[in-house]
Amino acid sequence: MEKYLRSDLALELNEEIEDSSIDNGIEIKNIDNYNGKIRESIIYIKNSIGAELLGKPVGTYITIEGDELCKEDEDVHQLFSQCLRDNLDKLLKGSKKILVVGMGNRFVTPDALGPYVVDNLFVTRHLISEGIIKNSIELSAIAPGVMAQTGVETQEILQSLCSKIKPDIVIAIDALAAREPSRLGRTIQICDTGISPGSGVGNQRAKLDATTLGVKVIAIGVPTVISVPAIVNQVVDDMLNFFMSKPGGDRIELTDEEKYNLSCNFLEKNLISMFVTPKNIDESVKRISFTISEAINSFFEL
Amino acid sequence: MEKYLRSDLALELNEEIEDSSIDNGIEIKNIDNYNGKIRESIIYIKNSIGAELLGKPVGTYITIEGDELCKEDEDVHQLFSQCLRDNLDKLLKGSKKILVVGMGNRFVTPDALGPYVVDNLFVTRHLISEGIIKNSIELSAIAPGVMAQTGVETQEILQSLCSKIKPDIVIAIDALAAREPSRLGRTIQICDTGISPGSGVGNQRAKLDATTLGVKVIAIGVPTVISVPAIVNQVVDDMLNFFMSKPGGDRIELTDEEKYNLSCNFLEKNLISMFVTPKNIDESVKRISFTISEAINSFFEL
Amino acid sequence: MEKYLRSDLALELNEEIEDSSIDNGIEIKNIDNYNGKIRESIIYIKNSIGAELLGKPVGTYITIEGDELCKEDEDVHQLFSQCLRDNLDKLLKGSKKILVVGMGNRFVTPDALGPYVVDNLFVTRHLISEGIIKNSIELSAIAPGVMAQTGVETQEILQSLCSKIKPDIVIAIDALAAREPSRLGRTIQICDTGISPGSGVGNQRAKLDATTLGVKVIAIGVPTVISVPAIVNQVVDDMLNFFMSKPGGDRIELTDEEKYNLSCNFLEKNLISMFVTPKNIDESVKRISFTISEAINSFFEL
Amino acid sequence: MEKYLRSDLALELNEEIEDSSIDNGIEIKNIDNYNGKIRESIIYIKNSIGAELLGKPVGTYITIEGDELCKEDEDVHQLFSQCLRDNLDKLLKGSKKILVVGMGNRFVTPDALGPYVVDNLFVTRHLISEGIIKNSIELSAIAPGVMAQTGVETQEILQSLCSKIKPDIVIAIDALAAREPSRLGRTIQICDTGISPGSGVGNQRAKLDATTLGVKVIAIGVPTVISVPAIVNQVVDDMLNFFMSKPGGDRIELTDEEKYNLSCNFLEKNLISMFVTPKNIDESVKRISFTISEAINSFFEL
Repeated sequence: MEKYLRSDLALELNEEIEDSSIDNGIEIKNIDNYNGKIRESIIYIKNSIGAELLGKPVGTYITIEGDELCKEDEDVHQLFSQCLRDNLDKLLKGSKKILVVGMGNRFVTPDALGPYVVDNLFVTRHLISEGIIKNSIELSAIAPGVMAQTGVETQEILQSLCSKIKPDIVIAIDALAAREPSRLGRTIQICDTGISPGSGVGNQRAKLDATTLGVKVIAIGVPTVISVPAIVNQVVDDMLNFFMSKPGGDRIELTDEEKYNLSCNFLEKNLISMFVTPKNIDESVKRISFTISEAINSFFEL
Repeated sequence: MEKYLRSDLALELNEEIEDSSIDNGIEIKNIDNYNGKIRESIIYIKNSIGAELLGKPVGTYITIEGDELCKEDEDVHQLFSQCLRDNLDKLLKGSKKILVVGMGNRFVTPDALGPYVVDNLFVTRHLISEGIIKNSIELSAIAPGVMAQTGVETQEILQSLCSKIKPDIVIAIDALAAREPSRLGRTIQICDTGISPGSGVGNQRAKLDATTLGVKVIAIGVPTVISVPAIVNQVVDDMLNFFMSKPGGDRIELTDEEKYNLSCNFLEKNLISMFVTPKNIDESVKRISFTISEAINSFFEL
Repeated sequence: MEKYLRSDLALELNEEIEDSSIDNGIEIKNIDNYNGKIRESIIYIKNSIGAELLGKPVGTYITIEGDELCKEDEDVHQLFSQCLRDNLDKLLKGSKKILVVGMGNRFVTPDALGPYVVDNLFVTRHLISEGIIKNSIELSAIAPGVMAQTGVETQEILQSLCSKIKPDIVIAIDALAAREPSRLGRTIQICDTGISPGSGVGNQRAKLDATTLGVKVIAIGVPTVISVPAIVNQVVDDMLNFFMSKPGGDRIELTDEEKYNLSCNFLEKNLISMFVTPKNIDESVKRISFTISEAINSFFEL
Repeated sequence: MEKYLRSDLALELNEEIEDSSIDNGIEIKNIDNYNGKIRESIIYIKNSIGAELLGKPVGTYITIEGDELCKEDEDVHQLFSQCLRDNLDKLLKGSKKILVVGMGNRFVTPDALGPYVVDNLFVTRHLISEGIIKNSIELSAIAPGVMAQTGVETQEILQSLCSKIKPDIVIAIDALAAREPSRLGRTIQICDTGISPGSGVGNQRAKLDATTLGVKVIAIGVPTVISVPAIVNQVVDDMLNFFMSKPGGDRIELTDEEKYNLSCNFLEKNLISMFVTPKNIDESVKRISFTISEAINSFFEL
């Protein structure tokens, strides 16, 4: 069940490390930007110790956060778009041929982020090869659908596509699972280590990274769901703390196994494959997908 | 918080009544149909005692259940469609002018059931008034969107529309909240008392019934979500039972208020306005919306 | 068949008036704006003579045009949005309670403009009545669907809704039919006389205007289709001119009736209910719907 | 311009052959099925003479037609589904690993047929490789989008995907262009020679066939549009016939070049990249996509 409890956000994983004072191979930089409207956190996982601790590969994890990200305010949206663009620019390092992959299922609202981004991109690859535009970055894009729709691993589709069209870099857009409800729709994570689609909600798929695709993979992710196990686990912890604090509570012995079973017990009932999402998820997914597509499109304005 | 814990299903509410042996104004009839593929339960709330007990108005609540309802099997789908049609037929009592209302937000997958049903209906009202078809039931349909999309209560939209086009009866289709995960996508509830949209997920809206619309309202509902409070509450209960069973546990005193606060505590963190839904909700909503639209369309086959 | 040939654009209707030098009750003002990127034409139909000539009610018809309107350029889109906002501002004359109606069928791409605009609006009516925001314009919105979907005239739905929620003004968004292919997706028409939905493609519906709704109706329209009869008629005219110019051609007599029958003849074959639209209509409808929704939303930025 | 005038239907191309009495390498078989509700025509192009005449590769072209195909009648839909299934069965010849490709753009209604079919398929490839189901045909599916969306030729995407997942056969679903308005939404063409996407509307894309994909390609196509040039050309022909029949008309000389220029002249004005489609295209595309997906799914019912 462990895998169901994980957050996809390096930031949240890092918050759980108990003693971060020692040199654990993880370095963090926090920046307040745009008059405090955007918080940027950059986590560098520098070696295998840090990778082991966070359960993420060595690399750079940038988090952009702001309470107003999901608001209907054109000006705020432009700030975030600009901030995302600047961060992407550093990671793209002058790549000229970009393939954007919209991960996820367009028919399940919190999972539709990737396809929605692709829907709004200004692709140029065919225009360049037809000689219609020149001197532009070459952008191609695909939203292949999830395995339940295609019967094929996204990894397989992308491996074959990359070997055919040979991009310099892949940008994979995906919806993520967070642990903290207040982060949903208010956070964008960019990393240079690729993604394991669906890992945060226990739906482990084959990885997309430089090893599997033969080309560097930048991942842009937005938390849109919390896994049910993450919530149940939190309630169980809260309850334990409560009981322990009651008179006589400290005399109750509870082994780790018992605690684990308590969580599992409830989750056996179909819930393990469910997710939690806010009622207005349609608005935030639409809004943020637009923020991301504008950031990517801005590389192509002539 | 009480309202967030409720199920929209009369069947689930009834399961919680502790002593159902006495005459409590509730009568239940269970039928196994179609070689056991469909279970029908009819709950009659006969008087105000029953209504108070179940928290639902006096009337008839029919539940159609079957594990195969969400399967991709055309034959099973036809059985359910037929069973739904037969039950509707009894409740419609020869109504000639029907307005179908697709409640919910088409852009949030588990809430899109109502709009999807309307998308597949064969409306006839305009064809009859233009003289193109004759001797048919007059069907009109609308999927007005939710208040966050329109700024207007669905009740207001329907009150005004009903006063204009004067249907004999309204059929309102809506996604419901259940308590039991295994019921999601496997249950259809039909009742003759109208609906309180969003009641099961704490999003109380103005009622749609004979009193507010001036015309009888049949409601067809399918549970597609569980409220987060319902799940948290269940975990809290499980934990309490566990602790009480431990040596020394029975000495821990826990007032009702403490128990209530335990649940609330966790839910303060934004979660109260979230819902839980299965990953494959897109498939079951599409499938069942089709089952329902076929049942309604079958009244119009000439 | 006459009705099928009409353009919905006052600008195109005016271009056909042969002698516009005399005082015919029509006054035109042309403005080049934003460094020539936007052409504004304002046609004032001042009296019944002008109304008869153009086949449109007395009122103001503003046309905003620009080749770049359908481009994927965020800056251009903001210019148009600003220009549309300024023109709306004049026509709204301080209205505080606005109902936006997205006309059309969201499932037929060139007809989806209205619903797409509504999808992106920031409605406030419910937030004001719940006391969540203050001092804002009250915006409500609905995309009721077309008669083939609902069985009900949009006029009926809006008459009843307006009598219930009593807006100061209605803004109706609709896709239009033009005659000139180069105008598709490059023109926005705003007028203060309401609309006759579907008139340009021979699909005459009940009018939406101050007389029928009891409240002033501003219409925002974008040409997305050409009627097949308009195209056929043009080909017939071209052919006639060609033949007349050939040696011996002038001896061929052709009555108006014969000419009319020629057009009709071809159109009898189902074509009369078809329309012509560009292959990339999805992109331009999405783009312009966003331009329009941003213009309307800008009234609500605090 | 020649390419813009073509029909995608072998049946229509064959109707234009003037003398079909001689042995031209084309053989036709007509069958009336299901009490006359379905007309089946099988055209065998047997050699290069026939291929040259029809402008289609050597192979089998089956056309299923019926006026009721676009009706909302569940029973009729099942007849067509059954008939399509039977024909597919013959062409599949026991293939065990099938890849279905939904060609076209899901956001342009008449082009959405392919994606809609894929949306409703019951894919099994992943279920088989995970051992969840056994003894089933292996179905995978993809709706990759058009080049304007992806920047990549569909041929490139499929070449790479086929080399990866190695299907026995590809079924490509696509919307077609017809010449005869009455055929739109009432005809399904199945052939065993693959497809040239977009050929009928002058939008020539790279071919999908055994040569390019390395695996046999069955194409299922439904005419949903007519090209504007096809309509203009027809009007020009009608006009010529009319003038020739007038007294003095026979004296007007018109070279082929003049005639060709007449058609082109009008089409220069942007129209060449437009298409003609019926107003209710949303209903027929949805309906027929369902007929096709049911036919394919029926291979998987256990």
